[in-house]
Amino acid sequence: MEVRDLGEFGLIARLRAALPPAGELLVGPGDDAAAWIASERCLLATTDAMVAGVHFLPEAVSADDVGWKALAVNVSDIIAMGGSPKHALVTLGLPPETPVAWIDGLYAGLRECAERYAVTIAGGDVVSSPVLAITVALYGEATVVDGSAQLMRRDAARGGDVIAVTAPLGASAAGLAVLQRGGPRDDTERALVRRHMRPEPDSAVGGAALTASGVACAIDVSDGLLQDLGHICEASGVGAELRIEDVPVDPALAGLRADDARELALTGGEDYVLLFTCAPQSLTRLAEAGIEALHFGRIVEDPAHHVRVLDADGREMDFARTGWDHLRGARGR
Amino acid sequence: MEVRDLGEFGLIARLRAALPPAGELLVGPGDDAAAWIASERCLLATTDAMVAGVHFLPEAVSADDVGWKALAVNVSDIIAMGGSPKHALVTLGLPPETPVAWIDGLYAGLRECAERYAVTIAGGDVVSSPVLAITVALYGEATVVDGSAQLMRRDAARGGDVIAVTAPLGASAAGLAVLQRGGPRDDTERALVRRHMRPEPDSAVGGAALTASGVACAIDVSDGLLQDLGHICEASGVGAELRIEDVPVDPALAGLRADDARELALTGGEDYVLLFTCAPQSLTRLAEAGIEALHFGRIVEDPAHHVRVLDADGREMDFARTGWDHLRGARGR
Repeated sequence: MEVRDLGEFGLIARLRAALPPAGELLVGPGDDAAAWIASERCLLATTDAMVAGVHFLPEAVSADDVGWKALAVNVSDIIAMGGSPKHALVTLGLPPETPVAWIDGLYAGLRECAERYAVTIAGGDVVSSPVLAITVALYGEATVVDGSAQLMRRDAARGGDVIAVTAPLGASAAGLAVLQRGGPRDDTERALVRRHMRPEPDSAVGGAALTASGVACAIDVSDGLLQDLGHICEASGVGAELRIEDVPVDPALAGLRADDARELALTGGEDYVLLFTCAPQSLTRLAEAGIEALHFGRIVEDPAHHVRVLDADGREMDFARTGWDHLRGARGR
Repeated sequence: MEVRDLGEFGLIARLRAALPPAGELLVGPGDDAAAWIASERCLLATTDAMVAGVHFLPEAVSADDVGWKALAVNVSDIIAMGGSPKHALVTLGLPPETPVAWIDGLYAGLRECAERYAVTIAGGDVVSSPVLAITVALYGEATVVDGSAQLMRRDAARGGDVIAVTAPLGASAAGLAVLQRGGPRDDTERALVRRHMRPEPDSAVGGAALTASGVACAIDVSDGLLQDLGHICEASGVGAELRIEDVPVDPALAGLRADDARELALTGGEDYVLLFTCAPQSLTRLAEAGIEALHFGRIVEDPAHHVRVLDADGREMDFARTGWDHLRGARGR
């Protein structure tokens, strides 16, 4: 059996089963970040890697964009737990012939992102590698109120919850498509590529702002809306119903056919916006706090934890591809 | 200019210069681990990567040994800061054709090491990669006494300090030589390979035990004694003098020529024992605490921060190779 036979999620399930119980951790493997308490602060840690030829094409994108993204995707994970990012470790795997100018660019982008999100680069490691790779481990903190950490977990969705995101979807996937087609040909396409390479997790909306309004369940949209919602449903033991008409599609996709734009929004991935569920009254509290939640569905009781997409007439639609599996490639339902 | 022109340490210096000041960190980039305080606990974070074909040969070593070592080298860094290891994030870069049995073995070794050092695997990431690579980020804690973190830093050596290690040196490098020569041919060589692949940072001697006796300066021996001592001298702005006769050589090297064994002990690396400096009276306190420190030199005032090796007659010796540079290979003086 090879790794590709298991697929990413099969492999992760296998790895988790191979580990001892998480002990004193509040949240162990399987969520956006691990969490544990030290005195009155709840500490968070997450990690994400980017490999040349797999996650980015060094000849097609600029080094500073890679640096920005390598950190930003981790920032997104911390925010999706309800925390604030704090300190990062950066590990570089480098072929000896890597141009130093490329590394300088990478660090310029890392630094820019670190300043944007008030992150400190706290250390790291540099190793020789036949392939260029950047791994970032990011540590963050969530607040503790009366001994209880204010976290958003993916296993906290309940029947009757509404489903919402903090921003419209699909622009990042459209930018990736532009890169795969040979690169941008005009300013519109350049803007889409930027959305793919410079994701901006919303630290103002995210984290503490949502937990303060009673939101306890969230994930960042990285693998694709349908797939990430599936992660929530599986972890929470519930199902979901989406109204396709209400799924917010990014205005940057206005030039595409409506069906194509919707498919990108549902399955494209790498949006790095927050997908969350909450009791309907929390939406009111969010609105009072000035946070616009774009809601488009609800959590239902469903032991099979299906994610159903309904058209304007309430009929279930079918999507051949639900998102991305990092070891298999495109993933079917 | 290519990365190999700068070399690992040139590149790290360049990366550090590209970063903003470390802000609220107690210890930022450049030591064994980063450190910062959250309430009454001082949290530590470190990371190390292992790449197939660079740090290990998958066909020559067992997967569980790779798993053990990937975590153990990080445990060594946390102990070398005076801390206790706590939570780890494991990132795997995997070619899709990686046998799952290999990953199972890797995780068996990781788990064994995690149990030995009371570490929790708190999360991680799995990505597709053309080359097999394992990156571990490890968090740990050091105690805080009256608002002051009990750490061992590499910039805290002072003229007049004695130089010591917690265990004899050279066995790991001898094991690596056996692997490079085609693998072990008898039980003696098998034992040496085990010393290379299953390093056992000494959590009993390490960390809190040393700081409690007043030791404030330490590093783990990973690149080689001379090179790691050079890191201490550079960071502390001092020099060092070693008595070659007193450098503790591992008894496992008894079968080698004395000169070869000494060279392995001085420059071989990957010993993962603690190298520390302290005032002479701390040696007495360590002895009273039942800790045997193997001392073999002293820190001297020297703005050029040279590490001098003296023979039995007090004459300075020359070593062509001082240790290992991860991007250049063997490193000259």
